[in-house]
Amino acid sequence: MLPYAPPESAPCEKYRRIRPVAQLDSEILAALKDIVGEERVLTDPESLQYYGRDWTRFYEPAPSAVVLPGTIEEVQALVRLAASSSLAIVPSGGRTGLSAGAVAVNGELVMALDRMNNIGDFDPVDRTVRCGPGVVTEQLQQFAEQQGLYYPVDFASAGSSQIGGNIATNAGGIKVIRHGMTRDWVAGLKLVTGTGELLDLNRGLIKNNAGYDLRHLVIGAEGTLGVVVEATMRLDRPPRDLAVMVLGVPDMTAIMRVLAAFQGEIELSAFEFFSELALQKVVAHQALQRPFETITEYYALLEFEQPDAAAMERAMALFAHCVEQGWVYDGTVSQSVAQAENLWRLREDISETITPWTPYKNDISTTISRVPEFLAEVEAVVNENYPDFEIIWFGHIGDGNVHLNILKPESLDIDAFREQCGEVSRWVFEIVQRHGGSVSAEHGVGLLKKAYLHYSRDPAEIGIMKQIKLAFDPHGIMNPGKIFDL
Amino acid sequence: MLPYAPPESAPCEKYRRIRPVAQLDSEILAALKDIVGEERVLTDPESLQYYGRDWTRFYEPAPSAVVLPGTIEEVQALVRLAASSSLAIVPSGGRTGLSAGAVAVNGELVMALDRMNNIGDFDPVDRTVRCGPGVVTEQLQQFAEQQGLYYPVDFASAGSSQIGGNIATNAGGIKVIRHGMTRDWVAGLKLVTGTGELLDLNRGLIKNNAGYDLRHLVIGAEGTLGVVVEATMRLDRPPRDLAVMVLGVPDMTAIMRVLAAFQGEIELSAFEFFSELALQKVVAHQALQRPFETITEYYALLEFEQPDAAAMERAMALFAHCVEQGWVYDGTVSQSVAQAENLWRLREDISETITPWTPYKNDISTTISRVPEFLAEVEAVVNENYPDFEIIWFGHIGDGNVHLNILKPESLDIDAFREQCGEVSRWVFEIVQRHGGSVSAEHGVGLLKKAYLHYSRDPAEIGIMKQIKLAFDPHGIMNPGKIFDL
Repeated sequence: MLPYAPPESAPCEKYRRIRPVAQLDSEILAALKDIVGEERVLTDPESLQYYGRDWTRFYEPAPSAVVLPGTIEEVQALVRLAASSSLAIVPSGGRTGLSAGAVAVNGELVMALDRMNNIGDFDPVDRTVRCGPGVVTEQLQQFAEQQGLYYPVDFASAGSSQIGGNIATNAGGIKVIRHGMTRDWVAGLKLVTGTGELLDLNRGLIKNNAGYDLRHLVIGAEGTLGVVVEATMRLDRPPRDLAVMVLGVPDMTAIMRVLAAFQGEIELSAFEFFSELALQKVVAHQALQRPFETITEYYALLEFEQPDAAAMERAMALFAHCVEQGWVYDGTVSQSVAQAENLWRLREDISETITPWTPYKNDISTTISRVPEFLAEVEAVVNENYPDFEIIWFGHIGDGNVHLNILKPESLDIDAFREQCGEVSRWVFEIVQRHGGSVSAEHGVGLLKKAYLHYSRDPAEIGIMKQIKLAFDPHGIMNPGKIFDL
Repeated sequence: MLPYAPPESAPCEKYRRIRPVAQLDSEILAALKDIVGEERVLTDPESLQYYGRDWTRFYEPAPSAVVLPGTIEEVQALVRLAASSSLAIVPSGGRTGLSAGAVAVNGELVMALDRMNNIGDFDPVDRTVRCGPGVVTEQLQQFAEQQGLYYPVDFASAGSSQIGGNIATNAGGIKVIRHGMTRDWVAGLKLVTGTGELLDLNRGLIKNNAGYDLRHLVIGAEGTLGVVVEATMRLDRPPRDLAVMVLGVPDMTAIMRVLAAFQGEIELSAFEFFSELALQKVVAHQALQRPFETITEYYALLEFEQPDAAAMERAMALFAHCVEQGWVYDGTVSQSVAQAENLWRLREDISETITPWTPYKNDISTTISRVPEFLAEVEAVVNENYPDFEIIWFGHIGDGNVHLNILKPESLDIDAFREQCGEVSRWVFEIVQRHGGSVSAEHGVGLLKKAYLHYSRDPAEIGIMKQIKLAFDPHGIMNPGKIFDL
């Protein structure tokens, strides 16, 4: 939705030019084939199109070739070849990203890690398992289940996203309030740097205060520091009998009070919210019923474990307290797994429901307590300037992450809508900046938000990030142009 | 205990020499006093001695002066002065460190942050509070309690250690298995880099995927990247009715099985271990009773919440299962807060109890499942070479962190003992390396373990760390010589 940012004017002096498409000559192609085998270097138009883009459908893919390495040694050999030929590499997982972190628009070599999808070396005491970068999120979730355990990072694209990509983007999702982001489940990772060197970071340890924790630097770096070629992932005890509660609340301030009241007593595993408008759309377009007849401005969805009757009693007492205080007008709680799933759908089906309106989407965060003010300010500026725009709010309010969606008015053509939304972006990011928030809560920066990074990070920070990149990738070949330009 | 490592031979070319003591001339002293005020620049021998060392009593303190800034602006001005005068700075907190990360042995300027101990801006929805770096750990714990909340990072030196130092060393302690390290409670931090620039990192956000997470890089960097001048710390819901169980187990393999069994069902907040020899010493020297008459080689101490009767029933069923399997020979569980405290003392009083034997100490970790093998290998090599050495094992077994203690035989003089322990260190670190462990689980590297860093981190990683240091600290003035030499 947002315009592609042109490269900044002053390139870093250490940074060499990368090769454009035309210069991927037959010599390099032959060398690529020597490393991974003839049939694992793809240059046909369909493959270039397929592997060249992610779920951000805004950029025209233009990679020069796709390679499919099968081992860490092959990845190292490919990176060394790329470094010596000044050829840029885009590491590529499930390409479900929404910020164009994995698109190849500039003649890059796409390194797709699909074949490195081995999962094994499960350790029941440490509760860790070793994954290739190409392991699909759902595959890890299922593996955990088979061991009587649980991989808690979950989100809509779990069926296609890969662990390597999850690590590169520090994927979040719907259980962050209790279980954190992908960051919190990476016990160790192996990285091939931009010089082809293999780093074995943290090796599955829980306590390791021997020097800088480079693992955390790589997590969320969107492939700009190197290629994640293996990860040791932590698993958790499975949750017991999850109950879901949906509450009707009059305003955002009340939602905050409900959150604080419940969190004081109960370990919530999710605290989501959506607006009445979002609920109307979902109920109208999916085979779902309203949770209750009472209409309120917002709805909160809470999830928690109920290992015994006492847990539900505590939750019901909190509900009664919230009603008494005027923070909650009505509510319902699941009595079965099927009911819990249906209540979840009220929140989870929103995104799919509104797709026909080709919505403008933005994924931002502030501290939790600032969300009500933030929402009000965004609504005020949008309503004032574009009174015909319908705003749909939903998101992971328990962690300060809201998804702003604006539906395209039927009368407006798509280009005019996009242009107006570019303006909305600037207003939104200015409000984000004023509240000390993040221009990208969970989707990353990629190409899409590069031009807006300065709203969240100051020049000194960005300068240090660039130097860190060059420490890992002195030739500037690893996913160049993502997050920032050198 | 370990010998001070001489500087490596090839200094990095970007690194300028720092000033020795003699060169802290009257001009610089006057400039320091201009910034913080006459009475906040200390050069008397007692102050130099007091502020120049930490709890590692192995290095002779030799700072050139001590400054006590009161504001972030003063810290920035001091750093800029130091950068322009090539004067090294040692950031200084409670100096309770055990790896000489905060000692000044080379004419450095000690920057003691004691005066920056303001605590405030509590947010009940985000459950965060802003702390100056000089806030004492216990002060934060008490502040949390006053808000009906809980700061879960706890360890022996909580009464003197400061938040800035906890962040610099990523302090761990006795609740890591459930609550993680200091790293997990830092929602945001402000850092003054080696150029005097102020970075405001993460600003209290839960979800923030806008570029590299520099916050995690600073945590555990032991002051080598800059001075932490403020932190936004997260607080948690307080635990409900903690119960403590002590179990007698025949061997380390059984301890691992007990851990796995309990963790499958119960959220443990601690899982510690100690040996029969450790128990004997504690019972003989403190006013404490054995937990039960049965003598076993090791003891496990478990702590968990019991919000209701069901929780204790689950724990008792697990205990019965472990006895049935032959993993546990005997056990006891606390019936009151006083009993829980007394059981904890069996573990917590070990360190103080063995102090008269001037023990050699080492703080190392492996993955949890490798601990039994690791212990056996260390015991074998020590027993073979020094059969008169008494080994006392205890530690946080639930997170793979063991504390190795060797008591000095009465007949051996201290210098000979130290020399022999130097040899033991090399054996221990070789075994650590073979098991992919860490030469410093929670105490950091500082000066003490600098010479051994390569057992845990390979040259490529150390090379990247050095470049990262220079990105934050291009003049090499921030705590130089700690962790590694440039």
